[in-house]
Amino acid sequence: MSRAFFILLDGGADRPVRELYYKTPLEAAAKPMFDRLACEGSCGILYTIKPGVRPGSDTAHLALFGYDPHVYYKGRGPFEAVGLGLEVRPGDVAFRTNLGTVDENNIVIDRRAGRYFTQEEIKEIESIVQEACQEISKKFGVELVYKHGTEHRGALVLRGEKISHEVTGNDPHKTGVPQQKVTPLRDTEEARRTAEILNEFIELVMRKLSKARFNEERRKQGKPPANTMLIRGAGVLPEIEPITRRYKLRAAMIAGIALIKGIGKVLGFDLAEIPGYRGSRDDDFDTAFSKAVELLQSYDFVFLHVKPTDAYGHDGDARGKIEIIERVDKALKRVFENIPDDTYIVVTCDHATPVKIRDHTGDPVPFLMWGPDIPMDDVMKFCERECAKGYFGTILGLDVMNLICNYLGKLEKFGE
Amino acid sequence: MSRAFFILLDGGADRPVRELYYKTPLEAAAKPMFDRLACEGSCGILYTIKPGVRPGSDTAHLALFGYDPHVYYKGRGPFEAVGLGLEVRPGDVAFRTNLGTVDENNIVIDRRAGRYFTQEEIKEIESIVQEACQEISKKFGVELVYKHGTEHRGALVLRGEKISHEVTGNDPHKTGVPQQKVTPLRDTEEARRTAEILNEFIELVMRKLSKARFNEERRKQGKPPANTMLIRGAGVLPEIEPITRRYKLRAAMIAGIALIKGIGKVLGFDLAEIPGYRGSRDDDFDTAFSKAVELLQSYDFVFLHVKPTDAYGHDGDARGKIEIIERVDKALKRVFENIPDDTYIVVTCDHATPVKIRDHTGDPVPFLMWGPDIPMDDVMKFCERECAKGYFGTILGLDVMNLICNYLGKLEKFGE
Repeated sequence: MSRAFFILLDGGADRPVRELYYKTPLEAAAKPMFDRLACEGSCGILYTIKPGVRPGSDTAHLALFGYDPHVYYKGRGPFEAVGLGLEVRPGDVAFRTNLGTVDENNIVIDRRAGRYFTQEEIKEIESIVQEACQEISKKFGVELVYKHGTEHRGALVLRGEKISHEVTGNDPHKTGVPQQKVTPLRDTEEARRTAEILNEFIELVMRKLSKARFNEERRKQGKPPANTMLIRGAGVLPEIEPITRRYKLRAAMIAGIALIKGIGKVLGFDLAEIPGYRGSRDDDFDTAFSKAVELLQSYDFVFLHVKPTDAYGHDGDARGKIEIIERVDKALKRVFENIPDDTYIVVTCDHATPVKIRDHTGDPVPFLMWGPDIPMDDVMKFCERECAKGYFGTILGLDVMNLICNYLGKLEKFGE
Repeated sequence: MSRAFFILLDGGADRPVRELYYKTPLEAAAKPMFDRLACEGSCGILYTIKPGVRPGSDTAHLALFGYDPHVYYKGRGPFEAVGLGLEVRPGDVAFRTNLGTVDENNIVIDRRAGRYFTQEEIKEIESIVQEACQEISKKFGVELVYKHGTEHRGALVLRGEKISHEVTGNDPHKTGVPQQKVTPLRDTEEARRTAEILNEFIELVMRKLSKARFNEERRKQGKPPANTMLIRGAGVLPEIEPITRRYKLRAAMIAGIALIKGIGKVLGFDLAEIPGYRGSRDDDFDTAFSKAVELLQSYDFVFLHVKPTDAYGHDGDARGKIEIIERVDKALKRVFENIPDDTYIVVTCDHATPVKIRDHTGDPVPFLMWGPDIPMDDVMKFCERECAKGYFGTILGLDVMNLICNYLGKLEKFGE
């Protein structure tokens, strides 16, 4: 029985970078393992949604797992919440949250409030926010649940009658501009009420945070105070058939960030928790790859998500991106001999995050598949331009699971 | 801020031509500028509608501008009418018209009545047709508006209650066969009535033309008389969001023929009028390209339409097609240094018009994009077979605007 090992380099694709003499990070990186897979396997070029369309990581992953995001994507919030371990029930409205810093004129000056918090600070923050949740719950007769994640991140779930996900957040998505009000996106009672509840909740959280002891400490230490909560990504959980049933796979996932974990949980993946793997720049790829190889013994489909390639793209740091690609390549090399013989390896990206653009783009991304029955095409290198010449041609995100399951022998015939 | 310059070679793609030693006109033409853009940029292969589907110029342009013709295409007539400067209101039914020649047995012997008319002839024709319009308007209580364009071409608009675009024309689309009757395509009162009005109108026009002085003159000079009006392309205007709003672009168009101008106007392009640019074989490409470069100073998106490549395809004249490609290439070269630095140049075709077939085919056509962030792929030549090896892979017409706007930084993210 064959199995698949899917390695995803988040935002790994790029455009020619001047400081790399117009190579992309994937072209410039020394990555003998990925290039060996390209030599021995076949490649193609992939548009996760459609050519030119700029994907979010959420819509891109849904498409790569075979779920049309035009049908199944109803906001990022629920995936974040599920990924943090919160329960999200049908009808619940969930949000991604950031701790943020505003100045005395309500101008957002740091969308991450310095990013780093001690365990003690987080405890205090959680207790403050939970207090606010309870007060608002009492007043409006809805339930609010907050959970803090890593660094500045968290998730908020709103549960009850007459609520709606058709609201904006208060996050202006950039600094130097005022914090927004939560605003209904549709003129319905539910959307208006949800906006009202959230605006009051945010004001209350801000009042409580302004008086918090830990913020005094932060100010003294010259750190930006966490004096607001920026919410975004309002959404409800889609009704979705798990990947395990749709493709008859035992599926496991290794991911560091809540969004991807949440998508994994919602789709029925078993999640492997690795303490040193949190989607940060110092992620422990060796342990992650060892764990993946272990999981390949008992799962048909193991998905490993690499986050910091995207983070370095957002930072505009080409050297950082190269370093991550090289570390991932080494980690794969270290475990390569232990990968079961009948394994198909897939390597691709969910989108490009060009260091010049510092955001996701709709450029084509490289796609690679290696394994027992994959022909050896002429592509010798895993990178954007070379993969475009490969055997698989031009494919879309929604094609990927079909291609994988085709080689795993897991697909029903369409017709006879 | 970047901008895009879109050069479209209508019907420019082709099949291997025996007299060109099995090269296509694009392969055989000396076009150093286009080939330089191919060397420095990236290419792909494009199916405007879907592989194998034979596009009209109208459906192909709608798709290339991002509008699914299956949704937005409701006949060619309204675009022709708008392109000639006629007003087309919601509910109006519009037609493309030709002056034509039938013999005494009603057999069509020239679908263009010799193609060429003097200004005096056109004046007389317009006044005859407008007379007929008024008589028919009076009889049926509908409004008919005719406008003559260049050569044999014109447009007719029908306005009023209980009319329908679900009728055929009277144009048999070839010679040697009888002129048709306009026939309802659906069994509705509106379609039956529309057919009746138009058949009576055409008979009246024919009666008037048979007695016209200018036709006597033409017969004396051995020219085919313009003794009928062939109508086709019945349609109504689609409800359509302008390209300026959909893609947040300031858009300008340079085109010689009414159909493309009409599509441009309907989609909200600003049209640049160039006297020597009428879609004919002696089009003044130098002036058109100079104008395009001027427009690039103040527009995000400048579209330049090259018609005679298609005309030579319909005529089966490979050398003629090559000559146009080479003249366009030279015109681009002449202005190249004046194109703003941040410009993306796109070159493609709306369909192939192979000289052997003398009509549009559903073959793949070459696609090229050149500009600041476009990687340099291995393709060294702008032509059908080479572009198929390019970085952009295989794309559809509907992808083109997304790809352009992706590089212009004009697209919202789908998801987060």
